[in-house]
Amino acid sequence: MTTNRRKPAGRPATLPDVAREAGVSRSTASRALAGYGSVSPDARERVRAAAEKLGYRANQLARSMITGRTHTLGAIVADIQNPFFAGVTRGITDAARAAGYQVLLANTDEDVAAERAAVKMLRDKHVDGLIVAPAATTETGHLAAAHAAGCPVVLLDRQAPGLPADSVTVDNHGAAQDAVRRLLVAGHRRIALVSLLGTAPVGTPADTPGTAPSTALEAAPADPASPDPASPDPVSTGLERIEGYRAALREAGLTDTDTYLRTGTFHREDPADLTAELLSLSEPPTAVFATDSMIALGVLSAARDHGLRVPEHLSVVTFDDTDWARAVRPRISVVAQPVQELGARAVHSLITRIEGTAGTPEHIVLDTEFIERESIASPPDAS
Amino acid sequence: MTTNRRKPAGRPATLPDVAREAGVSRSTASRALAGYGSVSPDARERVRAAAEKLGYRANQLARSMITGRTHTLGAIVADIQNPFFAGVTRGITDAARAAGYQVLLANTDEDVAAERAAVKMLRDKHVDGLIVAPAATTETGHLAAAHAAGCPVVLLDRQAPGLPADSVTVDNHGAAQDAVRRLLVAGHRRIALVSLLGTAPVGTPADTPGTAPSTALEAAPADPASPDPASPDPVSTGLERIEGYRAALREAGLTDTDTYLRTGTFHREDPADLTAELLSLSEPPTAVFATDSMIALGVLSAARDHGLRVPEHLSVVTFDDTDWARAVRPRISVVAQPVQELGARAVHSLITRIEGTAGTPEHIVLDTEFIERESIASPPDAS
Repeated sequence: MTTNRRKPAGRPATLPDVAREAGVSRSTASRALAGYGSVSPDARERVRAAAEKLGYRANQLARSMITGRTHTLGAIVADIQNPFFAGVTRGITDAARAAGYQVLLANTDEDVAAERAAVKMLRDKHVDGLIVAPAATTETGHLAAAHAAGCPVVLLDRQAPGLPADSVTVDNHGAAQDAVRRLLVAGHRRIALVSLLGTAPVGTPADTPGTAPSTALEAAPADPASPDPASPDPVSTGLERIEGYRAALREAGLTDTDTYLRTGTFHREDPADLTAELLSLSEPPTAVFATDSMIALGVLSAARDHGLRVPEHLSVVTFDDTDWARAVRPRISVVAQPVQELGARAVHSLITRIEGTAGTPEHIVLDTEFIERESIASPPDAS
Repeated sequence: MTTNRRKPAGRPATLPDVAREAGVSRSTASRALAGYGSVSPDARERVRAAAEKLGYRANQLARSMITGRTHTLGAIVADIQNPFFAGVTRGITDAARAAGYQVLLANTDEDVAAERAAVKMLRDKHVDGLIVAPAATTETGHLAAAHAAGCPVVLLDRQAPGLPADSVTVDNHGAAQDAVRRLLVAGHRRIALVSLLGTAPVGTPADTPGTAPSTALEAAPADPASPDPASPDPVSTGLERIEGYRAALREAGLTDTDTYLRTGTFHREDPADLTAELLSLSEPPTAVFATDSMIALGVLSAARDHGLRVPEHLSVVTFDDTDWARAVRPRISVVAQPVQELGARAVHSLITRIEGTAGTPEHIVLDTEFIERESIASPPDAS
């Protein structure tokens, strides 16, 4: 990397700086750097030397103007603080590096406006394509626009009906159904599901939760499978897990699949509060299925606050195999997702699209693994 | 966002596409888009319309060629899977957004070569400055070069002697000393420290651990405060915490500060193995201080595998207040770092430099908070 003490301090070199240093016009410098048009060999060399001397960073850009490729991928994740996305991000980065691509990451914190801004920024930075875990399943116009404009999009973890893009997910319905079946087999009948599955509706300031009562969803629980248009836009992943939960209850002859179902909105509801409400019922659940590891932590906190021991008083199972699930007492039984592989498959799908292979969108479904540990026991009233 | 069904399918529009569509030369299109030089109003309008029609994304770039500013910051973190960095990243993103900047993230996974590639990529993408948690404390030539070339660098969490850049850290020495003092006050004398603090040495393939025996560091433990040049390059944060640990032991009259000190290299050693070795000593430690939350998970795993209960048989305290530390039984006592504020202060320092304020580099030191929970008790042999 070239450094030079004589270049203007405090700001990066610009095209006019390079032109001045080389003693040529700006348009000649621009043509020389971009590698097209009529430039004398002498001028080209002077521009090259000036650019190197000043540390002007437009070479890759100039190349991308010609080839339309930068070998960078944009990855937009919904919540980098969720270990699931941290693991997927690692998978994306590793697979991209192996394929000769770099990754630019953006975090939306489950906010559609932030996602729109991230898509714009990454397109401005000329990424060759985008991997997106969309914050909302229906508000995807910005993704459709990118895709249509030749910046392919691959959806990760979540699907978006109406967006003709490849997607990589697990079988959320089947995995949830399997996990709840295991609770049924252990003897549980009062099985709860706790989930956060929606973003704030458009126009609702997500950062001022006081403007909407945090109990709104609890006061008027909508059917999450067919959400009210005015209610939060749920992500597909959560809905599929809820349907798997319901299917398992129904096949066990339990037709009431709502009593122990609690869903909240990201940044609005706290999973510990949703669980506390369940544990305060006159007939509380004896088992809880958490739809991700951060929700499981809320479930464990609420159980501890209620003086309940896992699994003697309350069985717990969760999606996502995090480091802590293996380290704590009792070790937590989980639905493990192949996080590295999810990221890698998304990268491979995206590169295939970038390299021009046409064809209808593909939905890749990866297997999960149920890992039995120590957090499921018989219900306390069965002994 | 404009979409257009007639644009060439499968690749983004390039400058030549725009020129062709507008019926002008490439150099005219380039001048029109970059907003300098001699272009007729008519040609300028045709280029603008063609660029919009084709979804050509060079507008921001063209602007940046003139102003030298893109209002994007690059953030390079060492391990996005560590909750500490996930939280810091959230702090960076929030503070940048509030200041009108976007953030491009890169993850190095504690690898100096990946860090170099990330710096190059982010400079190629014309970020205005970089926030870096450097993977190594001494191999920072690429950071010095970026800094000298007008791309200011702010160090986060870690310092680098010889790099004249602002840095934002906590008082690692003081916080570690305080945590170990609390173990001493509880009656412990055999207090262990477990840490991972180095990257693989240059030229050693980090992804083929088989080439270097994983016990190398244990077999020949170097003084981590003055590392052998051939040994891994330790990061400052870990060294300062070790010195704080030693200072606390010394002030309690314990002059042997090595017997229960175990350090490993990222990706080489497993903290659970380092702990298992300690617990197998004839006089095992009665308390362990973990230098981050991922190490604490290894300590807890090893304790469980040895049939030890926390805190009855083993007291545990760790740096970093993660969600799980509050949710598990027993709740873990921690040294909490102000993760959001660390990120925000780094953003503010960087923007101050970008906006041209000169002055000598500043080292901002933020306070930690010791949060006492349930993982510290008297040593078992004291009762």
